[in-house]
Amino acid sequence: MRLRKRPGALDVLRERPDIVPQKPEQLRGQWAVNQPLHVELGTGKGRFLTMMAEKYPSIVFIGMEKMESVLSYAVERTGREDNVRFIHGDVADLQGYFANGEVNRIYLNFTDPWPKNRHEKRRLTYPGFLNLYKEILSPRGAIHLKTDNEDFFTYSVEQFSQTGYHLNNFTLDLHADEPEENVRTEYEQKFVERKQRIFRVEAYLPG
Amino acid sequence: MRLRKRPGALDVLRERPDIVPQKPEQLRGQWAVNQPLHVELGTGKGRFLTMMAEKYPSIVFIGMEKMESVLSYAVERTGREDNVRFIHGDVADLQGYFANGEVNRIYLNFTDPWPKNRHEKRRLTYPGFLNLYKEILSPRGAIHLKTDNEDFFTYSVEQFSQTGYHLNNFTLDLHADEPEENVRTEYEQKFVERKQRIFRVEAYLPG
Repeated sequence: MRLRKRPGALDVLRERPDIVPQKPEQLRGQWAVNQPLHVELGTGKGRFLTMMAEKYPSIVFIGMEKMESVLSYAVERTGREDNVRFIHGDVADLQGYFANGEVNRIYLNFTDPWPKNRHEKRRLTYPGFLNLYKEILSPRGAIHLKTDNEDFFTYSVEQFSQTGYHLNNFTLDLHADEPEENVRTEYEQKFVERKQRIFRVEAYLPG
Repeated sequence: MRLRKRPGALDVLRERPDIVPQKPEQLRGQWAVNQPLHVELGTGKGRFLTMMAEKYPSIVFIGMEKMESVLSYAVERTGREDNVRFIHGDVADLQGYFANGEVNRIYLNFTDPWPKNRHEKRRLTYPGFLNLYKEILSPRGAIHLKTDNEDFFTYSVEQFSQTGYHLNNFTLDLHADEPEENVRTEYEQKFVERKQRIFRVEAYLPG
């Protein structure tokens, strides 16, 4: 997500330690006790995450975002829902925040496609990341990916497949027949209005 | 491929036992000695296969087709190339024609998508078939699939993935940047003229 620096963004995060834990690494392994745990990487302004949290109150949702300016909007959007938390941190440090097998689902919604070859390692479906996700995902855990970027999508499908994930609910046009349970992100809403295709796939670890 | 019955088609096949072996099962395990073996399932009128055979004289190409009317055109197209053979037979009997590990590559070009759910088992990427291909494919053997049918494509990608194949060279628009080595089938030529998308993927058995 491209956005200008927002003055005071860090203060917004600090004012809400109830939903943006100051030391998230201390919650490692304890984010959800006897509840499913879903994590969105690059949660942006948080529309998807907060809507999901309302819709599924029995699931704990964590939004990770490294840019405080964007994250501050997500925090402001969030009320007193007790099943939403945010981590102001980097995906590369995922294992510091989550214990092995702790996460039931990861969402990758319209993450930066990093189209240049020399930036491949920054894509959140680069094999290094996909192997990292394997560590924190539970058995039969899954990654749900949505994107409008065709090249990023085909890249991701190949990488999922080649790192041992299996694919499911694969679609090249999500909104041709939008599933009832689909929750649109901010980006997605815009793309749908412009009649752009949204690609989607689920990648899971075979049992 | 939809086509009317062609009178005399069987005679055309019988007149060329050099390229349409009468008892193909007797060649099982001996189609190619010290040469790679590529098999096209549903070879139709044979444009792809004969062009490939000219382009790669060191590879042995086998075209399988159960409809004699269509196959008779492929046979008439074929000259004295010694690296092209046809099998007038059914994909379900593949293991009768090929020994375990004998085939290096399988081509599925614009095979019938069988769109109705109740016909799923007829699709050549139905799991039953994909498991059959595993038997005859060599280590690191691959299936190269091209289709214009989006639903058949997404179905196939899921089935490949869920039966343990890995995916490579995945593209949602082959002709947006057509690879130099691409050989167009009859169907493909028409679709390209109508500017329809061609989907392509390679599925291989991880080593």
